[in-house]
Amino acid sequence: MNTAVDLPFQLQPRPMPAAMALALREHFGERFVTSLAVRQQHGRDESPFDVPPPEAVVFCESTEDVTFVVAAAARHRVPVIPYGAGSSLEGHLLAVQGGVSVDVSRMDRVLQLNPEDLTVTVQAGVTRLQLNREIKDSGLFFPIDPGADATIGGMAATRASGTNAVRYGTMRENVLALTVVTASGEVIRTGTRARKSSAGYDLTRLMVGSEGTLGVITEITLKLHPLPESVAAAVCSFDGAAAAVDTVIAIIQMGVPIARCELLDANAVIAVNRNDKLGLAEKPMLLMEFHGSAASVAEQAATVQELAAERGGTAFQWATTPEERTRLWTARHHAFLSGLQLRPGCRAVTTDCCVPISGLADAVTRALDEAEDAGIPHFLVGHVGDGNFHVAYLIDPASAADRETAERLNHQLVQRAIAAGGTCTGEHGIGLHKQGFLVEETGAGAVAMMREIKRALDPTRPAGGLSPGGGAAG
Amino acid sequence: MNTAVDLPFQLQPRPMPAAMALALREHFGERFVTSLAVRQQHGRDESPFDVPPPEAVVFCESTEDVTFVVAAAARHRVPVIPYGAGSSLEGHLLAVQGGVSVDVSRMDRVLQLNPEDLTVTVQAGVTRLQLNREIKDSGLFFPIDPGADATIGGMAATRASGTNAVRYGTMRENVLALTVVTASGEVIRTGTRARKSSAGYDLTRLMVGSEGTLGVITEITLKLHPLPESVAAAVCSFDGAAAAVDTVIAIIQMGVPIARCELLDANAVIAVNRNDKLGLAEKPMLLMEFHGSAASVAEQAATVQELAAERGGTAFQWATTPEERTRLWTARHHAFLSGLQLRPGCRAVTTDCCVPISGLADAVTRALDEAEDAGIPHFLVGHVGDGNFHVAYLIDPASAADRETAERLNHQLVQRAIAAGGTCTGEHGIGLHKQGFLVEETGAGAVAMMREIKRALDPTRPAGGLSPGGGAAG
Repeated sequence: MNTAVDLPFQLQPRPMPAAMALALREHFGERFVTSLAVRQQHGRDESPFDVPPPEAVVFCESTEDVTFVVAAAARHRVPVIPYGAGSSLEGHLLAVQGGVSVDVSRMDRVLQLNPEDLTVTVQAGVTRLQLNREIKDSGLFFPIDPGADATIGGMAATRASGTNAVRYGTMRENVLALTVVTASGEVIRTGTRARKSSAGYDLTRLMVGSEGTLGVITEITLKLHPLPESVAAAVCSFDGAAAAVDTVIAIIQMGVPIARCELLDANAVIAVNRNDKLGLAEKPMLLMEFHGSAASVAEQAATVQELAAERGGTAFQWATTPEERTRLWTARHHAFLSGLQLRPGCRAVTTDCCVPISGLADAVTRALDEAEDAGIPHFLVGHVGDGNFHVAYLIDPASAADRETAERLNHQLVQRAIAAGGTCTGEHGIGLHKQGFLVEETGAGAVAMMREIKRALDPTRPAGGLSPGGGAAG
Repeated sequence: MNTAVDLPFQLQPRPMPAAMALALREHFGERFVTSLAVRQQHGRDESPFDVPPPEAVVFCESTEDVTFVVAAAARHRVPVIPYGAGSSLEGHLLAVQGGVSVDVSRMDRVLQLNPEDLTVTVQAGVTRLQLNREIKDSGLFFPIDPGADATIGGMAATRASGTNAVRYGTMRENVLALTVVTASGEVIRTGTRARKSSAGYDLTRLMVGSEGTLGVITEITLKLHPLPESVAAAVCSFDGAAAAVDTVIAIIQMGVPIARCELLDANAVIAVNRNDKLGLAEKPMLLMEFHGSAASVAEQAATVQELAAERGGTAFQWATTPEERTRLWTARHHAFLSGLQLRPGCRAVTTDCCVPISGLADAVTRALDEAEDAGIPHFLVGHVGDGNFHVAYLIDPASAADRETAERLNHQLVQRAIAAGGTCTGEHGIGLHKQGFLVEETGAGAVAMMREIKRALDPTRPAGGLSPGGGAAG
C-alpha cells in the first residue's frame, strides 16, 4: 500500500466527457471498466506517490482497440495512459491528469517467430518470461530481464535492461521495429526486420524510452539471440565492494565478453541468503555468467578468476548445472523483494545511476559510506558491467525523516554520477520522480527539445512538461 | 564530373540577404568563401545530380563558429548544409534551396580519450582513419568503416556502418552522445558517457541518421573497443553467390561472433584482382575476419571452414600476418573504385538494400540475374552478415537508357527488399535519391511523423519534405 508523500507535480485532472464514456462503453462492453478496485489497481505502481486513479480502464485486445480509445481520447482531449504489468518504479502510470488507462495485458500473443532471421514480433502485453517460454524450442532466447516479469511493451517504453545488458545490450539495441498508435489514433510502423537501416529518422529509438508520452506501443519486433552452446555461472566474494568493482573494471577493459556481471553488497547477500537459503559468504560478491562455446567459456572464466584473485577475490564457486545456475539467478531476481524483508514493513527508495566504468568504484563506495553514515538500512545490487547500480534505502513509510534522508542521499548520488559523466537513470526511466534530475543531467536546452517533440507529436494536449503519467498522449 | 540527370525534386533557391553575407564576412574573414571553385567543390558529392552550388562556404573551427552561422541563417531563414568529407552517395549535401555550406573539416581534434572507459570524444571533422591513428597506443579501436575515409560527424549524420557492423554494430550502437547546434543556433548535449541510460527521449539516436536536417553535429562521444588479442582473416571461393550466402546464413544462425563477413561477386573479384594484383579465384568469394583470443579465433575459423566446405566452399585461404590482412582489406575498401574501372568512363548507380538474413540468398541471386539479363555491367559487394549488399550498375553517363535501366533494376531490388521485410538503405541514407523509397518502406504515416519532428525542431524553414540537402536546418 502506498503512503502519501509530497507530490513533485500538480494534479490537473481533465475529466472525461460523458459522450466519450458512452462511446467506449458501447464499443468495449464489459472491457470498459469504471469500478474503483480496477481503477485503483491501474493507478498505482511501485513508486511512492498516492494519486487518484484513472477515470476508467479499457482492456484492449488488438491494435484496433487501442486506436479506438486513443482516437476518442484525442477528440475529447483526454489523457491516455498505457498499462502493461504495472511494475514501473518511477510513477510512469499514475493518472496525474486523470484520463483512461489502456490496459494491453490481454494483447499477449507471439505473432511471428522467424528463427532463421533471429527475430520475433509480439504484442505489447507479452511478458519476458512468457516470450522465452514460447520460443524455447527455437534454440533462441530474448536476453533483456528487468527484475519484474514486465511486458515487452512496457520494457520498450522505459528502455529497460537488466543483467544481460553488458553482453546483449538493452531494449535500445534489441528492438528492431514497433507498431505505434500515435496521439491522434493513427497506426504507424517504425522500422523493418532488417538488422540495420539508414532510412529516415530513427522513430523506433525515439519511441523506445519515451515512456508512453508519444504514442501507445502495440507490437514490437525484437532481435533474438542463439542460446549459447555452453553456460557457466560463478560467484566470488571480496573483502570490500571496491575490490569487487575493480575486478569488473578489469574484466571490461580486457574485453572479456562476459554475459552477466552483477554486484551484491554484503546486505544484499544477507538478504538473499535468508530468503533463498543460499549459504553464501556474507561479503560483497560478484555473480557472473559466461556464454559461448565450451572452450570460450572455460577461457573467459579462467581470465576472470585470475583477475579476481589478483584483487583478493576468494571463494570462487562454480555453478555448472542448470539447476544451480537457476537457483543463483532466481535469488538475484528476488534480491529486491528479499532486501525489503531486511526491515519489515518498510518501503524502498531505489536509486538507478549509471556511470562510466572508471568512476564506478568511487560511486559505489561513496554511496555505501553515505548510507552507512546516515544510519539508514539499505542494500546495493548492480549491473556493474554497465556501470549501473541500485541502492535501495529501506524507509519507514510513516517517517518523513527517513524519506527525506533517502531523497537527500539519492540526490547526492545522482549529482556525483552526473559530474562523473553518467546518468540519473540507467534503466528505470524518468517517470514523475526524476523530472528534476533530467534537467540537471541534460540541460534546459535538451529538455526544451524534448518538449518540442512532445508538442509536435501530441498537439491536442498541453505539454506542461514531459508528463509521463497522466499527461501522456499514449 | 557529374552529368546532369532529371532531378527528383524542385530547386527552390532562397537567396542569402546581403546583411547576412556581411555579418559572416565580418566574423569569419577569409574563412567565409564565395569563390566558385570552393562553392562547386562543396556542392557536389558522389550522387548523380547536378545542382547549383551553395552561395557560400564557411570553414568552421569550433562549435561557437557553427553556432554563429546557424543563428544568423535562422534569423534570415537561409538553409544551412553541414559538410564533412563530401563522400555522400545520395545527394545529402546538395544546395537544392541554395544556402550556406558549413564545412567542419577543420574541426579535426580528438578532444578527450578515456581509455579506461572505452570512450572518446571528437570534433565532427575527425575522420575514421585519423581517429584510429590517434588512439592506436591506447589498445583500443573504433570499428565503423564506411568505404570512404568519412568524417565522424558525417558518419553519425548518415548512420553509417561498414564491414565490422556484424560484430560491433553501426553508428546507431556506437555513438554515446552528441553536441548539436540546433536549428535556432543553440547548443545542446544529447547524452552522457554512460554505456546506457533511460533518461528522456533518445535525442542521440534521433540525431544519428537525421542527415543534417535537425541540427549540426559538432562533437561526438563514441564507444571504443579493445583491440582483439588475436585476428585472422580468410577468403573462401564458391561456385555461385547463393552458396556463399547460404554459408553466411549458417554462420549467423549458429551465433559465430564473426567480426567481418563480406561477399564479393565474381565481377568484384575480377576488379580487385586487376587493381590490387591479388590473384584470387575469380568466383564469388567471402572475405572474413575473426577477432578474439587465439583459441576463440581458431575455434570460430574451424566452425566457419566446416560450414563453408559443406556448401562447396573451396580455396579456403588464411591471411594471418598483419600485412596480408591489410592487403586484403585495403583491396576490399578499394572495391568500389576498382569496380568503376571495369568500364572506363562510367559512373556507378549503387544500391544499398538490407534484408532479413533468410531472404538474402534470394535477394542477391535475383539482383545478379536481373543485372545479367539487362546486359548492364555491374559488380556486387556486400556486408552480408548484416543482410546488406550493394550492386553497382556501371552506366555510361551519356546514356539515358543506361540510367533508366539502372534505376529500374534498383527499384525492383528495393521493392523486393521491402516485401521481404527489409529496407531500401542499410547504411547510405535517404538523401535526395531515396525519398520516394522512404515512403514506400515506412508508409505515409511514419513519414508524416518525421515531417512533424522536422517542423517542430526547425520552425523557421518550411518543411517541404525531409529535405536533406538544401532544406536542412543544419
